[in-house]
Amino acid sequence: MTSLAIDYHGGGNFGPRTYEPAEPGPGDVGIAVAYTGICGTDLKIAHGAMDQRVSSPWPIGHEMSGTIDSLGAGVEGWQIGDKVTVMPLNWCGNCPACAGGHQHVCHNLDFVGIDSPGSLQQHWTIPARLLVAVPDDLPLLTAALAEPTAVAVHDVRRGRVTPSDHVVVIGGGPIGLLISLVARNLGADVLVSEVSAFRRKVADQLGLQTLDPTVDDLSAAVIEWTAGKGAEVAFEVSGSRAGVTALTEVLSVRGRGVVVAIHTEPTPFDLMAMFWKELDISGARVYQRRDFDEAIGLLADGVIAADSLVTDVVALADTEQAIERLGSGENIVKLMIDSQ
Amino acid sequence: MTSLAIDYHGGGNFGPRTYEPAEPGPGDVGIAVAYTGICGTDLKIAHGAMDQRVSSPWPIGHEMSGTIDSLGAGVEGWQIGDKVTVMPLNWCGNCPACAGGHQHVCHNLDFVGIDSPGSLQQHWTIPARLLVAVPDDLPLLTAALAEPTAVAVHDVRRGRVTPSDHVVVIGGGPIGLLISLVARNLGADVLVSEVSAFRRKVADQLGLQTLDPTVDDLSAAVIEWTAGKGAEVAFEVSGSRAGVTALTEVLSVRGRGVVVAIHTEPTPFDLMAMFWKELDISGARVYQRRDFDEAIGLLADGVIAADSLVTDVVALADTEQAIERLGSGENIVKLMIDSQ
Repeated sequence: MTSLAIDYHGGGNFGPRTYEPAEPGPGDVGIAVAYTGICGTDLKIAHGAMDQRVSSPWPIGHEMSGTIDSLGAGVEGWQIGDKVTVMPLNWCGNCPACAGGHQHVCHNLDFVGIDSPGSLQQHWTIPARLLVAVPDDLPLLTAALAEPTAVAVHDVRRGRVTPSDHVVVIGGGPIGLLISLVARNLGADVLVSEVSAFRRKVADQLGLQTLDPTVDDLSAAVIEWTAGKGAEVAFEVSGSRAGVTALTEVLSVRGRGVVVAIHTEPTPFDLMAMFWKELDISGARVYQRRDFDEAIGLLADGVIAADSLVTDVVALADTEQAIERLGSGENIVKLMIDSQ
Repeated sequence: MTSLAIDYHGGGNFGPRTYEPAEPGPGDVGIAVAYTGICGTDLKIAHGAMDQRVSSPWPIGHEMSGTIDSLGAGVEGWQIGDKVTVMPLNWCGNCPACAGGHQHVCHNLDFVGIDSPGSLQQHWTIPARLLVAVPDDLPLLTAALAEPTAVAVHDVRRGRVTPSDHVVVIGGGPIGLLISLVARNLGADVLVSEVSAFRRKVADQLGLQTLDPTVDDLSAAVIEWTAGKGAEVAFEVSGSRAGVTALTEVLSVRGRGVVVAIHTEPTPFDLMAMFWKELDISGARVYQRRDFDEAIGLLADGVIAADSLVTDVVALADTEQAIERLGSGENIVKLMIDSQ
């Protein structure tokens, strides 16, 4: 059966391609792709900002769900028809990071869907070892949130969130909202700081406390909220300089900050606050296997309200226009591409 | 007996004053001051940079040793003649930091010798609860290193240094060298990056591995030293922007960085490296009681070679000129003022 792929060609250009899916090789599986979520990194790629890393004409996309439709030789433990998602990290196993148990930040990491072909197509062939099982009763649209949810689980783990914590989430995009839901599920009190009225409305729907930092003074609000202490944990998910400033401002003595957003340029950082309050600031990148497993559990348990988060579902053929709309700042939280 | 004090008058000016020591009040002790070390914060004060905080005419100085010469009413457990040093932190006990067990970074901290009168005098009266016992056989000149050694112990604790770690110390002044000695004593491999030939020579005397980052590429050297991994722990003790850049550069995946030096202005920080390597960066400020106790033990055990670190001992009357020499970048590691 002829399939459609949307290739990224570099320079911010996408183009359609039709192909006949090949039989999977030894150890590989073929997946009929259902949904692919578009994330901030995909947007950066689509803006041409990562062409040094991604320029071969192939599909991007790494937040996905689908159904196994073919098995290569030697693949065990999987059946045709199984619902799956993919943990899109292919590590070398030999570098110092891998040797230290941090394979997810392998020195030679192949991030599948960025460094190698991704899921913005109808039929995707990948190594079976990257598969993650999706429960039969979990809708495939919800299952496509597994990857960003695993990011959030990992971020919350890096922040060592406990039930008694006040948690400030700076930036209420998809990852910020997922972090908020994961932290709240642990018992923490969560406040989301977000400039977009649309995203604040989605946060409201999710029952999250919100604040518009362009209207209200976030630091003053946090001091009042925490009876003078400051927040025990804060996440910088906005990618903005104002967010970085807020991160150190809102934290309590010995507060834990997590830098989730990607800041490609050296950014002014308040090292005086680091010193004065003895802050602990951590970087967080992708996830480990246990984060993915926990993410699937949270989706299955209904902790992550996919209905509120997925605001747009668009056909695969319309990928380029949909990504343009997302990049233009249109009122979207999570955009899903439908390959079915 | 008439005593001499060197008061700081603000605006970078010091002046002598003679006085008759008063009898200590209830709960206080009088100390015949032996030695007072001059640190970077004292230098900042002497440069007029902290006049908003320190401008009353009183003596500064908080790294000290001495002998109890008078006891106020109700003081128990101390005798006239006891050798002592002082942990110069007076906390409120009521703020959120104190309530959380972090009294050393109390929201209302009185840092004795900065926020209240210090030891650059011959006779100092302080609350007995700030006293720390010095073993009888520990020379008073060595004991005056207890406070900066406690800083180093605290910094190394914040960096969670283990015996298998490669530790890069950026800046080989007194605190950098003390951190190096404390980390080495735990079994870690230590490399000191220092621009001053004089300070590198002192580090050499202490048996430490050194590098001049203006001549050799520190990052390249660390990659070679660690077989491609990077350093598990690094300390920024230089107070320079180049040091902040080096901190994130030299660290391995999941490396721990400690910001020890005081950076009063927001400083460009490589948040991309934070993210990419999942770094943990911590601020460190002063010490807790257990750090002070451990510091005394390290001094008593000869781990800290006072002979090499104390490069200058100057009479109390000559304090102002000695501080000027220290501030001018003269070849000094630790300057001690002799009040005897």
